[in-house]
Amino acid sequence: MNLLLLEPDEVDREGRVTLTDRRFRHAVEVLRAASGDELRVGVRGGQRGLGRVVQREAQALVLQVTLTEPPPVRPRVDVLLAIPRPKALKRVLSTVASLGVDRVMLINAARVEKSYFDSKVLDASFIREQLDLGLEQACDTVAPTIEVRERFKPFIEDELSAWAGDARRLVMHPGPDDAWPSLEPRERLLIAVGPDGGWVPFEIELLRTHGFAAVAIGPRPLRVEVAVPATIAALRPRLGA
Amino acid sequence: MNLLLLEPDEVDREGRVTLTDRRFRHAVEVLRAASGDELRVGVRGGQRGLGRVVQREAQALVLQVTLTEPPPVRPRVDVLLAIPRPKALKRVLSTVASLGVDRVMLINAARVEKSYFDSKVLDASFIREQLDLGLEQACDTVAPTIEVRERFKPFIEDELSAWAGDARRLVMHPGPDDAWPSLEPRERLLIAVGPDGGWVPFEIELLRTHGFAAVAIGPRPLRVEVAVPATIAALRPRLGA
Repeated sequence: MNLLLLEPDEVDREGRVTLTDRRFRHAVEVLRAASGDELRVGVRGGQRGLGRVVQREAQALVLQVTLTEPPPVRPRVDVLLAIPRPKALKRVLSTVASLGVDRVMLINAARVEKSYFDSKVLDASFIREQLDLGLEQACDTVAPTIEVRERFKPFIEDELSAWAGDARRLVMHPGPDDAWPSLEPRERLLIAVGPDGGWVPFEIELLRTHGFAAVAIGPRPLRVEVAVPATIAALRPRLGA
Repeated sequence: MNLLLLEPDEVDREGRVTLTDRRFRHAVEVLRAASGDELRVGVRGGQRGLGRVVQREAQALVLQVTLTEPPPVRPRVDVLLAIPRPKALKRVLSTVASLGVDRVMLINAARVEKSYFDSKVLDASFIREQLDLGLEQACDTVAPTIEVRERFKPFIEDELSAWAGDARRLVMHPGPDDAWPSLEPRERLLIAVGPDGGWVPFEIELLRTHGFAAVAIGPRPLRVEVAVPATIAALRPRLGA
């Protein structure tokens, strides 16, 4: 936890916030916060800054908050992600939050097991917890929005166009590197990442006919938890950013 | 498991191998292998190819193996890694194997907890299991070598030079991007990746005086499981590879 994430309504008019939950325990047990110490804080959806410890009680910590800094720059990336197995999804949620992804559409695919849709990992409260872990790690305050669709083809054919906007569409497909399209520095990207077993030919074909260029970051099939950060990081230098 | 990893001494003179362990169960339960099917196989440290199912018994599968293909190209990367917490290390081991890292030196650092050295994750047999999972995922046959050092400063001062050879030395340090040094396409790289909490100033300074250029893949501090694949993927386009 590199930043204590605060809710907007937790900060009073004088800029004070009282922590009593896991943030309190982290501040006390890990950061060993003492009176006068300054801790990194950020308000959900807003600015970042410092919280000075003005009161330390047995079960609470009062911070005087000064917000001066915007959240970190975002890479302008959305992800269309075949739902991975629950343990992987849990990690991917915090990963996409830490990387500053704006929107994630979790989608069914031929190699996605139906049971994944019943996983508690898809509960809104669980998703939010995982996203918050990613924000706290990366010192960000703005979480990705997460949506779920249970049918691949109808989403691609009927909803994609409105959802994707004018983002450049890329689908990760391990194999000999396709030629990467030349990307504009500030272009918005939509990256489709398949299941551990990959997309099936029908899916690749449907994505291609809907404007996705197939690209790869190498010949190695990667687990989705590895493919997502690798892909986003590989785009960055190609965007000159 | 995208490839069944075979030991050299398992394949007999006629190119036959009998599987009875978790590979047997994977072939039967996940791949639903039937007589005549061809499965992707690779021999540890050697070639890849296909194994045709020639015999299917209740508790064993006999494959006729044909090896025709070398393992995938490697990115020529070594990693100097501050030992992460055991759960993260477990994942990082399979990750580095799947990415084709050649050598990993696990090292102590100020923000590494001493207890990590006693973790069963550092047992040779456990390490090998995790590396094999990464090879099986990435269709590779050559695992990274993993070493451990319990003292940071003596390693950097006394051992690094012999261990690193003439690899270009880079240390990941989140912050405003330093200027990346210009990298040769086939240059060997040594990447130092710190703990989740980052390197302390003394460590960064010691690394710098030993030839490490500080670089970043963005302003966001990332968990080590995310930083390792992101870093290696970000290097690839910078190497023109």
